[in-house]
Amino acid sequence: MRATVLLAIIMAFPVFSFSQNSSESAKPDIEHVLHQQRDAWNHHDLEGFMAGYWNSPELTFFSDTKMSSGWQSMLNHYRKAYQEGGREMGHLEFSDLKIQALASDAAFARGKWELTLPNGKNPHGVFTLVFRKFPEGWKIVHDHTSAAVE
Amino acid sequence: MRATVLLAIIMAFPVFSFSQNSSESAKPDIEHVLHQQRDAWNHHDLEGFMAGYWNSPELTFFSDTKMSSGWQSMLNHYRKAYQEGGREMGHLEFSDLKIQALASDAAFARGKWELTLPNGKNPHGVFTLVFRKFPEGWKIVHDHTSAAVE
Repeated sequence: MRATVLLAIIMAFPVFSFSQNSSESAKPDIEHVLHQQRDAWNHHDLEGFMAGYWNSPELTFFSDTKMSSGWQSMLNHYRKAYQEGGREMGHLEFSDLKIQALASDAAFARGKWELTLPNGKNPHGVFTLVFRKFPEGWKIVHDHTSAAVE
Repeated sequence: MRATVLLAIIMAFPVFSFSQNSSESAKPDIEHVLHQQRDAWNHHDLEGFMAGYWNSPELTFFSDTKMSSGWQSMLNHYRKAYQEGGREMGHLEFSDLKIQALASDAAFARGKWELTLPNGKNPHGVFTLVFRKFPEGWKIVHDHTSAAVE
């Protein structure tokens, strides 16, 4: 009888620990990653911004209808688009952020982004991010970003 | 001693059962949902196409930079865009499909879509879909679709 109770407690525990991880800690942890990305971008620290992404050739990035993959190629793309030839990173803000836990180690985030550039341009749009939890923390494994046509 | 072995077996089982569910059955099951959606669309059966989506006001749909939510409003949008006023649904194909399990009841899919319309137009683009497994099967809970500017 005592063994049965013990077994019931042990078997119930992973369920409790799972829902704790997924619904209570994923959201603030992922929000923190996104705030760190925004702050890094606004300090013109591209490597700091890229720290939010899974450093893997399997990272995927859909920018409008262009499919690309790999952390290094994404960094190169951002360097060309926002740092080379006198280009500026500007000021980035996220809004309407909605983070949804899918498991203890998986989640997705939806929201709007808006960039204010020194030349007065104001690119903006929406994003869908898929996150996985790695030993080093939550990282974006897939980014689908759409920009409004100006 | 015997109780310890029994405990070890019981505690190991959920892990095994989880990886079986997530990596082996999610992909073919989700592929089947997408094939059913494509076939329904190509038979001009909008309700059949919509059966792949979570029938909930919480379903979200990003079409380029427009955010919308709710199954019914998505159906109304498709009716207006592809059925009313002599509009045609045309022929839908998916390609470069990549399905990734995230948990036993969560996954995401990436790919390309292409529509061939009777008027000769050929809208196309990429999509990111987040799936959850419900008692009635895998359903899309979030759809981010980008269309190429013609």
